[in-house]
Amino acid sequence: MFVKRPTLVLNSSIAMENIERMQQKADALGIPLRPHFKTHQSLELGRMFKAFGCNRIAVSSLSMANYFSEEWDDITLAFPVNIHEIDLINALSAKIKLNLTVYNLETLLFLENNLKHSVQVYLKINIGNNRAGYPPEASDEILEFCRRVQSCSKLNLEGLLMHAGHSYKCRGESAVLEVHKACMDKILLLRDLLDTEFPQLIFSFGDTPTCSVADSFPGVDELRPGNYVFYDLTQERIGSCNMENIAVALLCPVVGKQDDGETIILYAGGVHLSKDVLLDSMRERIYGRPVIMQEKGWRLLDEANYLAGISQEHGVLKVTEAMFETINIGDCIGILPVHSCMTADLMKQYLSLENMWINKMH
Amino acid sequence: MFVKRPTLVLNSSIAMENIERMQQKADALGIPLRPHFKTHQSLELGRMFKAFGCNRIAVSSLSMANYFSEEWDDITLAFPVNIHEIDLINALSAKIKLNLTVYNLETLLFLENNLKHSVQVYLKINIGNNRAGYPPEASDEILEFCRRVQSCSKLNLEGLLMHAGHSYKCRGESAVLEVHKACMDKILLLRDLLDTEFPQLIFSFGDTPTCSVADSFPGVDELRPGNYVFYDLTQERIGSCNMENIAVALLCPVVGKQDDGETIILYAGGVHLSKDVLLDSMRERIYGRPVIMQEKGWRLLDEANYLAGISQEHGVLKVTEAMFETINIGDCIGILPVHSCMTADLMKQYLSLENMWINKMH
Repeated sequence: MFVKRPTLVLNSSIAMENIERMQQKADALGIPLRPHFKTHQSLELGRMFKAFGCNRIAVSSLSMANYFSEEWDDITLAFPVNIHEIDLINALSAKIKLNLTVYNLETLLFLENNLKHSVQVYLKINIGNNRAGYPPEASDEILEFCRRVQSCSKLNLEGLLMHAGHSYKCRGESAVLEVHKACMDKILLLRDLLDTEFPQLIFSFGDTPTCSVADSFPGVDELRPGNYVFYDLTQERIGSCNMENIAVALLCPVVGKQDDGETIILYAGGVHLSKDVLLDSMRERIYGRPVIMQEKGWRLLDEANYLAGISQEHGVLKVTEAMFETINIGDCIGILPVHSCMTADLMKQYLSLENMWINKMH
Repeated sequence: MFVKRPTLVLNSSIAMENIERMQQKADALGIPLRPHFKTHQSLELGRMFKAFGCNRIAVSSLSMANYFSEEWDDITLAFPVNIHEIDLINALSAKIKLNLTVYNLETLLFLENNLKHSVQVYLKINIGNNRAGYPPEASDEILEFCRRVQSCSKLNLEGLLMHAGHSYKCRGESAVLEVHKACMDKILLLRDLLDTEFPQLIFSFGDTPTCSVADSFPGVDELRPGNYVFYDLTQERIGSCNMENIAVALLCPVVGKQDDGETIILYAGGVHLSKDVLLDSMRERIYGRPVIMQEKGWRLLDEANYLAGISQEHGVLKVTEAMFETINIGDCIGILPVHSCMTADLMKQYLSLENMWINKMH
């Protein structure tokens, strides 16, 4: 398989399996799945989810909600409302069920004064990742906020939104399960406290590691993982997936071979892969792992081969002496990304193994 | 100054000063300046360089060479030739003086067999950054390569291309000057060795740190810095510039305030800033430094205020208690980037302080 420039190759069969596996899990648990589409950002890929019965999604920007509103009518913006985008909020809420994330009173008041149509509100809860939202312990403030939302005519209080982003720091399934357990305990406690006054609240919980690893989600009404459609080296390191579950590889032309017999220069830099990095067992920085394209898919090279550095457009691939001899200028080598969401965001489209271009938002 | 979404604001006066300062330095030294345009990627910004007498540029991809060929007729592709782009090479070399970077024999043979028009060739020399090219000590191989190029009818041997990328690891001017001295020593030695047979070779040398800090470049025939048009936090840390020389800031809406009295959530993530990071004196990770917009430009907040984390779309800004009180939802805060080349690459255009949009390649 050859490409002119760095190209994100999609193994649709693997992506399909990933989509199906998560949907089946959610179906078996009886918990609606609302996949986060910030990872793939593609209407065409979105249709694969529909094929397995998915009818609701989450996104991370209003621009993305706008893009997906062409084919989806129930969209959660899992990002705090940006009041400067009120015009687009009003346009979208006239057309679809738009679920917004709010946790600041100022934002709430602004919405109340400026909304033209009803929207659903999710209150953001900081379930442990310490990014944004109310701590679950602040039940008085949470109750007070829920009451405020309920008193606003254009705001329908729909639920609580939680993202266990701290699971990304886990290494291994048992660490993920510990994070998951701590989250579930907090959710059950909060549920108890809110249940009398707000029994209808949807507890929406997400993140690919816990959704991939855990088997039960007591107290959760909606699952919101995203990255699982592609997975990546970070998810493999966390324990969310195997290398065989990774569905995308950046295919890159070889543009140089160093005389040292171990360094290959790829046309593949930070503007294609992003600068996300992992440390290997020797604390070497890894920017990706090389795969050799085959008739159906790709074959991962062993750990002695790795992308050791990237600058704006260059990738520095370290390979074994034996591998070095087999690689020629103009060959195209695939790179499994460290963080597929960021790599997909940077690329303008996908190329399937069947040589079909798949469009995405850009 | 308000923006709807994260927007890269350009302080044109600062950029103009940066462009002028470097041009004057090169002029005073009598060394032609070939600025690297991968940083700004904009025809409109390119015209500022022309105004100061610049007539040649470098780029990091053939796509970029194609974009700039609309207004520039002497372009060096400071990236190893990618043989899959031969059609575009042939189209461009019919139109402009196209200078290519080569250091592998396979690539040379391919070019000889497939070029339709003459191109200039620069041999890539690894001057110490250990990314690509011949080590300067390999003078026999370098001589041999030069002879091979000279024997090819469509290849004009033009010079040697060197990038002191290892200067980016320096902290402080004296460290930069040490790297610079080591490079100059290697260049003078190599020059001596090649001079008898190839007296006309252009020694093209670049990187923003050494070009900003050093006062003389013995043995160098062309300077090729790029980042200096904008500079950034990394360059300030290296010692290439002061905070006052940084010409771009990502302007970001405030979308959240945490109850902790110190955390502000910005609409500004890795998809806008990139994931480049610096460590501060306490080894905290810094993804940017906040500035407050003013009538003419911006005011940098002190080091107690910093962008402490980013995910795909969120930025987590830590501020002092006093600052926290002054910031409201919907305010727009500027972020000086860690690496302006990567941030500029991610953004689709610039907004000037005079509220004019400036286009770039995307």
